[in-house]
Amino acid sequence: MHSALSELGRRTTEPPISWLMHAALARSRLISLAAGFTDNPSLPVAATRRLCNQILRSPKTGQPALQYGSTAGDPELRRLTAEHLRKLDWGKIPRLRPQNQGRRPAVPPKIYDWQRLLITSGSQQLLYMTAEALCDEGDIVLVEDPTYFVYLGILQSRGIRARGIRLQRDGLDLVHLEAVLASLKHSGDLRRVKLLYLVSYFQNPTGATASFEKKCRILKSLKRFEPAAGHPIYLLEDAAYRELRFHGGGVRSALAVSGAAERVIYAGTFSKPFATGARVGYGILPEPVFTAVKHIKGNHDFGTANLLQQFYARALVAGACAQQVARLQKRYAHKARVMKQAIEKHFPPVVEWWEPAGGLYFWARLPKNVPTGVNSKVFQASLKNDVLYVPGEICYADDPARKKPNHEMRLSFGSASEEDIREGIKRLGAVLHQLVK
Amino acid sequence: MHSALSELGRRTTEPPISWLMHAALARSRLISLAAGFTDNPSLPVAATRRLCNQILRSPKTGQPALQYGSTAGDPELRRLTAEHLRKLDWGKIPRLRPQNQGRRPAVPPKIYDWQRLLITSGSQQLLYMTAEALCDEGDIVLVEDPTYFVYLGILQSRGIRARGIRLQRDGLDLVHLEAVLASLKHSGDLRRVKLLYLVSYFQNPTGATASFEKKCRILKSLKRFEPAAGHPIYLLEDAAYRELRFHGGGVRSALAVSGAAERVIYAGTFSKPFATGARVGYGILPEPVFTAVKHIKGNHDFGTANLLQQFYARALVAGACAQQVARLQKRYAHKARVMKQAIEKHFPPVVEWWEPAGGLYFWARLPKNVPTGVNSKVFQASLKNDVLYVPGEICYADDPARKKPNHEMRLSFGSASEEDIREGIKRLGAVLHQLVK
Repeated sequence: MHSALSELGRRTTEPPISWLMHAALARSRLISLAAGFTDNPSLPVAATRRLCNQILRSPKTGQPALQYGSTAGDPELRRLTAEHLRKLDWGKIPRLRPQNQGRRPAVPPKIYDWQRLLITSGSQQLLYMTAEALCDEGDIVLVEDPTYFVYLGILQSRGIRARGIRLQRDGLDLVHLEAVLASLKHSGDLRRVKLLYLVSYFQNPTGATASFEKKCRILKSLKRFEPAAGHPIYLLEDAAYRELRFHGGGVRSALAVSGAAERVIYAGTFSKPFATGARVGYGILPEPVFTAVKHIKGNHDFGTANLLQQFYARALVAGACAQQVARLQKRYAHKARVMKQAIEKHFPPVVEWWEPAGGLYFWARLPKNVPTGVNSKVFQASLKNDVLYVPGEICYADDPARKKPNHEMRLSFGSASEEDIREGIKRLGAVLHQLVK
Repeated sequence: MHSALSELGRRTTEPPISWLMHAALARSRLISLAAGFTDNPSLPVAATRRLCNQILRSPKTGQPALQYGSTAGDPELRRLTAEHLRKLDWGKIPRLRPQNQGRRPAVPPKIYDWQRLLITSGSQQLLYMTAEALCDEGDIVLVEDPTYFVYLGILQSRGIRARGIRLQRDGLDLVHLEAVLASLKHSGDLRRVKLLYLVSYFQNPTGATASFEKKCRILKSLKRFEPAAGHPIYLLEDAAYRELRFHGGGVRSALAVSGAAERVIYAGTFSKPFATGARVGYGILPEPVFTAVKHIKGNHDFGTANLLQQFYARALVAGACAQQVARLQKRYAHKARVMKQAIEKHFPPVVEWWEPAGGLYFWARLPKNVPTGVNSKVFQASLKNDVLYVPGEICYADDPARKKPNHEMRLSFGSASEEDIREGIKRLGAVLHQLVK
């Protein structure tokens, strides 16, 4: 008798990271620089308790929080979130406003309209539902090369093809983007291209941040190829790490690109900059994607847990989110410095690495002839010496147009303690000195 | 230019209930007997506050609750939930044990093994992911006729066909089930049948409960047709309302059917019997469905909010779940009595109705020539008199094999106050006296 599984059920495989997690569990002395977990000691336990108590102090606020809400999310949280985004883009970073505008530019109010905003169970859910709403089997999504590997899992499970666009320190290689679009047009595949997926801030896995200028030019390129595609090509901006910048005002999102609001899907989250165990994400979406995704969410779960939504609404108003972000920015900046100093001290000079300006990750590049995959000498020797990293190759899409690079590694300073970061990098450095000539 | 939406994106339509909700919002005096919301005054605000405080009292318990968990869910909650289910089926309802066993039967431990249990964001998410894991476009799901309309939305959006099986007070009409299976075998469509979906306790919308005997016989029928199908045919038991029985020990789940564990997918929830705003559900699944659904969940959200999971683990241990269930059982039993008395007093005798033994719903059947749909005289007159119900027809699948019945209504006593139940039924009764001859 055959299995009853659907094609999707059969295609959906174990995420590559699972194997790493199992390896970690089996070795008690192991230092994991692989996990994408956030910093435990910084978790806002007291603030969360305070806010829960405020909500649950009386039936008047407690009952609505413990009752079902609506599919699109709590209207108050949606309003506060839309305003939060507007402020991130326009309110507090005046030096990043377009040079050619003498006074505060008028923000088209519609872009940050709360009615275009959908609350989700983490930004991951928005990524999934967007793929459902836009992509049929065989459709094509353009991704950064490398990109967030769980997103690649979504594409793979749904039979969606991925094409990688080379990544530079300040975002996509625009020349390569144009070349890929032109080649897809030439092969007749452009009509299958539905969106470009961009992890725009302190990217997972490389830590790279796309400049605002690049976002403008990406949107222009996509627009230019739309007539040949026969339909809109969306930019899906995954801003999960946006708030976790170490210093300064930050880069504006693609929502702020003039005239592009109808093509930008923005995915954000409250969990990473506050508490990953209280998972609430959100998206801003243009029509008809907003309505389609809202209806899909109706089938998924008809709304994210109302208690968590009321919690974040209160945390935003009380300033708890802003306080926690300020705390995390300092904390991660410090841990990144610790990792940087350890890398400088222990890694052979032949290893190149990218220092991030926020987020949770360093990206290291070994000479091309030194593989880092799970079966490689480097990985096995690292595991034997009780240190774990994410092999770069799992962050690359299956793209027939190029060989998958296999000589890189993602190093996370998110969850490891300072001592473990130092010791882990030291162990890794010893392995590299031995195996990298 | 065309829309970029996928076929799924285009197919996923506004749920029919949305229209009803909009209608409700527009009329401030309106009494809704339509909403599936739970009883507001009964929500466990104080208990929730107490438990949150316990978790967040110290970093030792607070930090793990605010950190990411694993995709399948918190191991402690999975263990507690599996044990909770084992007790529901075997521990506390001795009079329902098989007659032919003199002593406590040995429960195959594997059935309630926590490693077969997956934590989800409400049981709805399990229904969705099960459809993804098992059904391709064009596949067939057997459903009760009528059934839970949001489940019909899932099927419709995914291009899955539904076939309705007539419903009796004690569950499916087994003769009709056999006839439908035989006809599907005859037409060559049996290989597309992946599962039968059963809302087994105090069904939404009719309030009917499937007897244990019927569950046994359903599983036998499905098994007999498997060779012709060429693959397993699963029974998906949706037990969302199970704990909300008014009296007595209750019926065992299909998990307890001897030898059937490999064909039963059980969907349960903590939210309905505790607090719908703190949404956590769960499923017990056989292989290979468990692994497929777990991987799909990895793509959806890689795990339900850990804070809510730790919350329910603590609520189960502290007895807060059991206390709340006892409270709700009394409360809903009382509200059901209020509705029953009002119906007896105000409805014309020609209207048939089913009194439930638990859950949130009464089911009323008008004479066949009196339609109840949103464009009907009954519905419009009810709306004009400020009372809302769910038209029965939205609970019927699009099944070419029969005409959709359109003369029924679902009446909920879940969220309305006792006063509103009495007044709502009175208004509805006046409409019916006027329009039903």
